[in-house]
Order: sequence, then structure tokens, then C-alpha cells
Amino acid sequence: MPFKPILSTLLLAASTLLVPPAHAAPTTTVTTATTGKEPITPVQPARVSNRAMVELGKQLFFDPRLSRSGAISCNSCHNLSMGGTDNLKTSIGHQWQQGPINSPTVLNARFNAAQFWDGRAADLKAQAAGPIANPKEMAFSHALAVDVLQSIPGYVAAFRQAFGNDRLGIDEVTQAIAAFEETLVTPNSRFDKWLKGDRKALTRNELDGYKLFKSAGCVACHNGPAVGGNSFQKMGLVAPYLTSNPALGRADVTGREEDRHHFKVPTLRNVELSYPYFHDGAAATLTEAVDTMARLQLGRQFSADENAKVVAFLKTLTGEQPRVSLPLLPPSTGKTPPPRPFDQP
Amino acid sequence: MPFKPILSTLLLAASTLLVPPAHAAPTTTVTTATTGKEPITPVQPARVSNRAMVELGKQLFFDPRLSRSGAISCNSCHNLSMGGTDNLKTSIGHQWQQGPINSPTVLNARFNAAQFWDGRAADLKAQAAGPIANPKEMAFSHALAVDVLQSIPGYVAAFRQAFGNDRLGIDEVTQAIAAFEETLVTPNSRFDKWLKGDRKALTRNELDGYKLFKSAGCVACHNGPAVGGNSFQKMGLVAPYLTSNPALGRADVTGREEDRHHFKVPTLRNVELSYPYFHDGAAATLTEAVDTMARLQLGRQFSADENAKVVAFLKTLTGEQPRVSLPLLPPSTGKTPPPRPFDQP
Repeated sequence: MPFKPILSTLLLAASTLLVPPAHAAPTTTVTTATTGKEPITPVQPARVSNRAMVELGKQLFFDPRLSRSGAISCNSCHNLSMGGTDNLKTSIGHQWQQGPINSPTVLNARFNAAQFWDGRAADLKAQAAGPIANPKEMAFSHALAVDVLQSIPGYVAAFRQAFGNDRLGIDEVTQAIAAFEETLVTPNSRFDKWLKGDRKALTRNELDGYKLFKSAGCVACHNGPAVGGNSFQKMGLVAPYLTSNPALGRADVTGREEDRHHFKVPTLRNVELSYPYFHDGAAATLTEAVDTMARLQLGRQFSADENAKVVAFLKTLTGEQPRVSLPLLPPSTGKTPPPRPFDQP
Repeated sequence: MPFKPILSTLLLAASTLLVPPAHAAPTTTVTTATTGKEPITPVQPARVSNRAMVELGKQLFFDPRLSRSGAISCNSCHNLSMGGTDNLKTSIGHQWQQGPINSPTVLNARFNAAQFWDGRAADLKAQAAGPIANPKEMAFSHALAVDVLQSIPGYVAAFRQAFGNDRLGIDEVTQAIAAFEETLVTPNSRFDKWLKGDRKALTRNELDGYKLFKSAGCVACHNGPAVGGNSFQKMGLVAPYLTSNPALGRADVTGREEDRHHFKVPTLRNVELSYPYFHDGAAATLTEAVDTMARLQLGRQFSADENAKVVAFLKTLTGEQPRVSLPLLPPSTGKTPPPRPFDQP
């Protein structure tokens, strides 16, 4: 049973590295399969308190005018038609720059203890500010994005309705985007139905996969409502993870040598939709991802049958996708700074 | 009255160049303001006969996997959040190539006599095949796009449901996309309400603008249900249109010298949303576009007041935008050829 001591290490790591979630989701205690309490908890449907704010946030999420080119929106890389991802190894930024890291899903991101693979943003609001001003992504600036929005009467009115005042700055922009993203949860997966007592919601094979997922130790890191997202862990714990991706992960935030190649554990909700996998997008399929995780994190070689069982379980984590009506964006005016897709920087 | 002979020329041109619409919309006879019959006809809501086909077409319209990069969909350049356009002078293609011409709106495109600015596609189905294989746009091939779709069980099932057989080729792909695009009409604009007898639907100012639109001769080309789209006309009829855009327009299709710089007259439906204007996207505002059109096509200099009245009328052509629920796209499989955004060609 070579995974036992590793599991202990992981549990210790989880308890020391766990960052309290920034949002409503409670920190989930890691439990073992023997306690009777399941280590994964159901996703609850989103409750909306400020409908105008969420609608505004949805417009902003889909608005490519938040980018310098006028062509890249939040939805470009966190596509709500495709599990909240772009299904690319790494994303495409301004003037087709290659992104440094795989775009994580925005679905259930509210449950993450922190945002980005390295956790450098405390919450969704802080995260939303990043790509707008990142020269490799939307390549705009907060000031320019705000200038664009302030020139559009439809937005001025929508901000007033959402916030009850005349402020329209980057704080309001990112707050509204975060409010929309808070609604992007995926309840009622087959696994959630099983958790809630519907014993027919899973097949025998899927349930075997879940049992293996627990007994093998996957659940040490992949637990809670998002089946992950609540700790940083070293990628390549038992054996090194070989990649050409230069990201250092958590060490880029903390500056600590011991955080090198520590990354936020991704959610496994909707993992069937969020391929390719890992921070470098190197694993094209769930089969490959499960095999790599077992070997490098748990020191275990799954048989083909075991792997298939775990994959079958993982596919039961696909929940009801948010039903999004495409927003209509208020038109620019003669005062709106025009997009500049082809200008040299 | 310098426009009278020009109007006659235009009417002659319209009668000789008019191409019968490929779709249901009847060719509209150009009438003058004095006949009592209005030269613009209301847009009717879309009727859907094959719901499964339309839903499939919507998925395909939003699916970036029809591009080589996995990042460009039909909706990238014909964004249904933004009047069916990208609001860029010219679009951004594969690896950020600069498109040769302004992307026309897909809204009410079914009423066009032919598709593309030069009319090289007879109908929406033929149009849809173009960008997928255009190396400057989606940069894929029909065979590769079909390979991708055939590898995705969710698509295989959707094609079977839509077509009632097991064929899944580029003909079915483009037919489904066209079926979705046929639904993208914008009825019940304020102008349509006025046409149908609601005399309060337009303000005095807007009605003055419409009268001027007719009496000045704009209506010679901008008529019918789409307020355009049913003839090719020379850009720069009275005086040359100066542009750095090298497009020859209709001459690229016919090879005839006399078709140089003849372009399809664009629809003016939702023109408030489809900025910037003209085949080169050079006019940023309606004010500028109206001024240029009056000078170069009608030999007329509108006063600021006249221009504003015509612009006010044009804004009454904004109709009810299609309410589109974002489609959920079936996930790729291990057999799906992966996207190649960064490969060198």
C-alpha cells in the first residue's frame, strides 16, 4: 500500500496550505472514506440578490470592448458553451500571443479558495481585473476600459441601476463581473443526486470508480463542493512532472522555494468538458490525466480497468450547465475610443 | 434638384443589376414617395420548420472547433451580442491576420440577394462554407471540420436528428448553419410599427428623416424588407470613393471592368448597431456615413439638420434582436483532432 504515507502527507499538506474560501462556500474538512460522511458535497444552485448587477456582469463578461483589440472577452477563454474553458492547451491573447498557462474553468470558480493557478487573486473580483490589463491577454488598461464603458449611455444607465449611484470605475466593473460569475454553478450532477440519496443515479461501475477515487487518495486534494479548488499542492509529488511550461506556480506569489511547482488543485466538476488538463494543458484526455495523477501524485499505477472506473466516476460530476441567454450589448457612440486590433504596441 | 437625374440613373441601375433574392423575400419594386406605397416593407418574424436543424445550426454557429485554431467561430465576426457584427473595421482571422473587408451583419442576411460584399455566394448555405476554409479567416478545411464533427458523438446524434440520416458532410454543416441564420431576423422595429399603422411609433423628427431619405434618393438602393441587400451599386457614383482598401467588389466575381467598386448595398436594418460602416469600415459613425453617402452617391450635401434627421430615422430601424440562448457544445473525444492555434502554416 505505497499510497498510505503519501496520503498522510497530502492530508497534512491540505491542512497547512488550505486557504479559507473567499466566498460563501464553507471550508470542507477532508474526511476519509471510512467516516461515513462523504468528502465531496453537493453544489447548490446560485441565489441572486441583485439581478441588475448580475445582468450587467453578464454583459461585461461577453463584451470584447474590454480588450484593446475589441475582439477578446472574458467568454473568449472561459467559454460558457464549452464548460467555461476554451479547450486549448493555453489561450490566445492580444495579437495571437500564446498564453502562459491553461485557462481554468469559470464554472464553480466561486468555490475556489483563491483564483488563478497560483492563487494570486483572492477572489473573483480580483481575478477579473487581471486579464483586462495583462499585455498578453486583453492588453488593455483599467483606465481605457472604463473610458470605453463611460462613453456608452447604455452602460452608464446599467451601472446606475446595478449600483444605485453614478460610480463607474474598475471596482464596479470587476464587482459586476464577479457577481455574474458567482451564478455560474452547476448543480444536480448525477453524482450530486447520488449524494442526496438517489442510489440509482450512479451505475455500479461509476460507484466503483468513486470508491477507488477515495481509497487511492485522490480525494485528499479533490474534495469539497468543487471537488478541488481549496488547496495548493505540488505538481509531481512522488515523481517529477516533466513539462516545458515555465510556470513556477505558488512560488511566483510567495517567493518561497518550497512553493515551486505548487499549483491550486483544480475543480473536477465538469471535468469531462474542461479538457485539456493540468496547468500546461498537456493531458488531452481524462484517461491520460488520471494515469498521470495516480503515478506522480499517489505513486500508483492504475490498471486500465481501474483507470476506466475513475474516469466513469469523473464524468458523473458534469452538472447542469448555466442556461445563459446571450446578452445584447449597448452600442458604442461617436465618443467611444475605437478598438485597435492591429496597432503595433 | 441635382439628384433627379442621378436618381433616374440609380433606378435604371437597380433594374438592370437587381438579382432575384435567393430566399423567401420578394423583390421589392422601387417606388417613390408619391405613390402611397412605401418602398420599405416590414420584417416578418422567422418561422421554424425543423427545430432540430436550427438548434444544430446554432451550435455550429457558436463552435470555434470549425476553425483550425479552435478559437474562431461564426459568432466571432458575426457577434449576436453586437448586431451580428464584430464592430471592427475589418475582422481578425487565424493568427491575427487582418481581414480584407468589413464583416457584414448576419441579421436579416436572409433577405440579401446574394452573400458577401461582392455577392460571390448565392445564399447563406454557400456563404457559410467560405470562412471555414479561408486561410485568412478560420483557416481550416471542409474535410478537417467534418473530421472534427464526426469524432464527437453529440454532434453525430444531432445531425441524425436534424437530417434523418447518417450523412455528416460539409453540405449538412452549412445547411444547418444557414437554417439557424434564417431565423436571425429583427421584426417590430419602431419603423415597422409605423409601417403597420402606428402613427405614434415615429417622432416628427424621425418621420422628417424618412421623408428626406426618400426624397433625396437613398431609397433607390435602400429598399425592401432589409432596406438594402438587393442590388449591387458603384461605391462612389458621383465622385470617387477614396480608400486604401483594395477590394474590387463585384468585378472580382464577374471579371468585368464596369463592375469595379460595385458592392452589394448593405441592409440598413439595425444600422445603429453595425458600425463601422462601408466595405472598408472607414465611417465610424452614422453621421459620417450619411454625409459620405449623400455626397458620393447622390451629389448632395446634407445640412447638419438634414443629416441628423436621416440618422434619427435610421435608428428607428433597430428591431427586436434575436433572443439567443447560448448553446452547449458537445465535448470533443480522444479521437477528435486537437486544435492547432500556434502551428506554423
